[in-house]
Amino acid sequence: MVRFTGAESRSTFSALDETSQPVELLLPVSRDAPGTLGAQIEDGLRRAIREGALRSGAQVPSTRDLARQLGVSRRIAVDAYSQLAAEGYLTLRQGARPRVSEAAAVAVPAERAARAPAPPRFDMRPSTPDVSAFPRAAWLRSLREAVGTITDADLGLGDPQGVLELRTALAGYLGRVRGVVAGPDRVLVTSGYRQGIGLFCHALAARGARRVAVEDPSNREQYDMATRAGLDVAGVPVDDAGIDVDALARTGADAVMLTPAHQHPTGVLLSAERRAALCAWLRERDAFAIEDDYDAEYRYDRAAVGALQGLEPERVVYAGSVSKTLAPALRLGWLVLPATLLEPVVAEKVAADRGTARIDQLALADFLVRGELDRHLRRMRVRYRARRDALVAALADALPEAEVLGIAAGLHVTVRLPYGGEDALREEAARRRIVFETMRDFRPGYNGPLTLMLGYGQLSEAAVPAAVGELVEALSPLRGSRRR
Amino acid sequence: MVRFTGAESRSTFSALDETSQPVELLLPVSRDAPGTLGAQIEDGLRRAIREGALRSGAQVPSTRDLARQLGVSRRIAVDAYSQLAAEGYLTLRQGARPRVSEAAAVAVPAERAARAPAPPRFDMRPSTPDVSAFPRAAWLRSLREAVGTITDADLGLGDPQGVLELRTALAGYLGRVRGVVAGPDRVLVTSGYRQGIGLFCHALAARGARRVAVEDPSNREQYDMATRAGLDVAGVPVDDAGIDVDALARTGADAVMLTPAHQHPTGVLLSAERRAALCAWLRERDAFAIEDDYDAEYRYDRAAVGALQGLEPERVVYAGSVSKTLAPALRLGWLVLPATLLEPVVAEKVAADRGTARIDQLALADFLVRGELDRHLRRMRVRYRARRDALVAALADALPEAEVLGIAAGLHVTVRLPYGGEDALREEAARRRIVFETMRDFRPGYNGPLTLMLGYGQLSEAAVPAAVGELVEALSPLRGSRRR
Repeated sequence: MVRFTGAESRSTFSALDETSQPVELLLPVSRDAPGTLGAQIEDGLRRAIREGALRSGAQVPSTRDLARQLGVSRRIAVDAYSQLAAEGYLTLRQGARPRVSEAAAVAVPAERAARAPAPPRFDMRPSTPDVSAFPRAAWLRSLREAVGTITDADLGLGDPQGVLELRTALAGYLGRVRGVVAGPDRVLVTSGYRQGIGLFCHALAARGARRVAVEDPSNREQYDMATRAGLDVAGVPVDDAGIDVDALARTGADAVMLTPAHQHPTGVLLSAERRAALCAWLRERDAFAIEDDYDAEYRYDRAAVGALQGLEPERVVYAGSVSKTLAPALRLGWLVLPATLLEPVVAEKVAADRGTARIDQLALADFLVRGELDRHLRRMRVRYRARRDALVAALADALPEAEVLGIAAGLHVTVRLPYGGEDALREEAARRRIVFETMRDFRPGYNGPLTLMLGYGQLSEAAVPAAVGELVEALSPLRGSRRR
Repeated sequence: MVRFTGAESRSTFSALDETSQPVELLLPVSRDAPGTLGAQIEDGLRRAIREGALRSGAQVPSTRDLARQLGVSRRIAVDAYSQLAAEGYLTLRQGARPRVSEAAAVAVPAERAARAPAPPRFDMRPSTPDVSAFPRAAWLRSLREAVGTITDADLGLGDPQGVLELRTALAGYLGRVRGVVAGPDRVLVTSGYRQGIGLFCHALAARGARRVAVEDPSNREQYDMATRAGLDVAGVPVDDAGIDVDALARTGADAVMLTPAHQHPTGVLLSAERRAALCAWLRERDAFAIEDDYDAEYRYDRAAVGALQGLEPERVVYAGSVSKTLAPALRLGWLVLPATLLEPVVAEKVAADRGTARIDQLALADFLVRGELDRHLRRMRVRYRARRDALVAALADALPEAEVLGIAAGLHVTVRLPYGGEDALREEAARRRIVFETMRDFRPGYNGPLTLMLGYGQLSEAAVPAAVGELVEALSPLRGSRRR
């Protein structure tokens, strides 16, 4: 740690980093401080190098520049550098800028290469889109537009609810594509779906809600977020028509989190009857729902069913993000809020981070308005549908006992097998470096008939036969035991 | 709400928005649904328009395209459109694409123009930088680099702690400029300073901490964030040498949040003696500090004093952001963490939002490595220093009783006046549309000698005399009463 004080100290001096860019370094010296000026320079540089503030190979100023910058005589600088070179901290060569020597600088801690396991050979995690198709050129064009047009007000503190351009574009897009009913004033821009459910849960808790219901099975994330907000969580069974609304009513919950378009992970669609029953329960109980419109953009067999929010916009919070359509890296999502929840949820957003990055918001607005998301989704639907068809066909061929559940939508196939053996399968899959999820990821302790969620976001059509072949190999001990 | 189900429904159809881009709309029809196909089309479009899903001027498909997309006869589409035109929903003109009529579409709710007050004539809020100088071209160049080079892994789920490129660049930058001691493995990228203190407070609470100390006066944000995390908050007085460490020890706090480089809002620097005493307390109490290195990049009279973190890196969390140096809009910040807090704080980040937007992170890494931040700061220091000098000179001239407190740093001047009158001043200032902060913003209920925080981030040098003139006018009733 370099620290000098005193009336004679001068401003920071300039060094050069490895790329020969001018850099600044904190190394003030003072005639009032203990020690000679030369000793102060030596001590400061020694410590900066030892403690990692200056790394191997970093250029330091020439003695002439140093002397000028610190307001000391050249002689003092030359002597200090000689001493440091003698000690092995600096490398001085005729005609070259002095540098921090390779030996002296502290090693940068070994990065987490060791921490990360070997990448899977077949990655069939169910929720990851094919980011290799991320439309880089179109996104950059939208970023350029955003950087060029952002106002000073938006560059400054801005509106924590989100920039008006994006809220307007989202209201239009969601109304058009998903039947969401809302004006821009009801849209809150979030930093992704997870943040959205977190804000919702915290706002509920602040209003006095005690218990929230989740689908069983469901993404454990919802359970975690509700628990973090101090809410009790009640699981409600899901059958072929979606969440069991009678069972929901018996939980006494104040709110429910659900995935009506494509239940995660079972893949079922919430039926029209259940939708009506759910809305009746929301009104009667004076409760709220949060609708995770998870992968409604990917329906392959027929038109997507409209959002639940459209039926009951004052009781259903609509939640979405670009993580499945564009890339998780963007961390952009949204909530469409009932009037009574608008202020409390926006207040939670302010507390969380004062609003989402605004150049990104403007870029997404431009991307939507130019029809780029529509274009990208049209392209991706063709691609994913081909992968899904290939996967279903390969499964029918190689694993005839497998039953494909749910509707033709989303980024994964849910497969039920007529035998158990989670532990054995997990061990085999790990050994073969195939990654997928099973019912146990969504229902802890589950040990019934094997139910696999096989994603194709990261699995090319060409890789499908090999991946299924590997899966069949991993299952073979279990299949064998069944045949016996 | 447009909702149709049934075996014959077809995929969503394409319309065109106001910019003639192809768009998609959820409007399935079904031979199994009640009503003729034509009636279903009419009803669906009517509702989409009435409920705002389709807005004024939006293009709908030609009857030919509609018929093809829905798999119905052209005649049905023509009849449905004629009916809707007759009802005033659509505008049909020979040779032009049919559109939603101006009259029919619901009005978009009047936006919050009404909500926002008239902008101030002189904005002297203390924490806002001059975003009009935001280096758009350089930032765009870094964004382009980021979009072009981001890996699929970073586009996907990525590392919630932050991309390695940015953590490495920050470790180097902060070591060099602020004397922060850390490798990239200790850096957590956040979505701004507020999120950082929130994560810190939540992690402390999860470890069993009960009470956190804050400087008095201080930014109320810290108080709010600690309270939200369920922590007690104890205020500790600040004098000319910074926080009173003896008083801190008496609070029994488990942690302290402070601004050593430039106490916010008093502007004092934490003295060397106090730094030593604080570190001794941290060790003895087994406590943590979070150092808000608020505006250390802006020191005008001499070199900035190095970060407290460098003295005690295993007990001091270092927090910073680009909000004061580049723009709040970017929502990019960082924490440098002691080893024992790394996992708990990263876990809070995962729960909050799974990590900060990664293209932005890579852009900032590029911006730092290319020396653009150094360059921007050199430019801005000159600009702000001129404003500060002009402001101090104008105050000395027009308000000779004003005492300028604290060090020559940051984005505001702290001014103490030998008379009170907060209420009267606030009323006058509001009437004159000058905005600044006073001690009461940092210490609720304060009613002592007037202490004003006059920011110059948004105040050009040329505007200084007029702004001070306005301030003097606003103060004149109070000055008068004193002279009497």
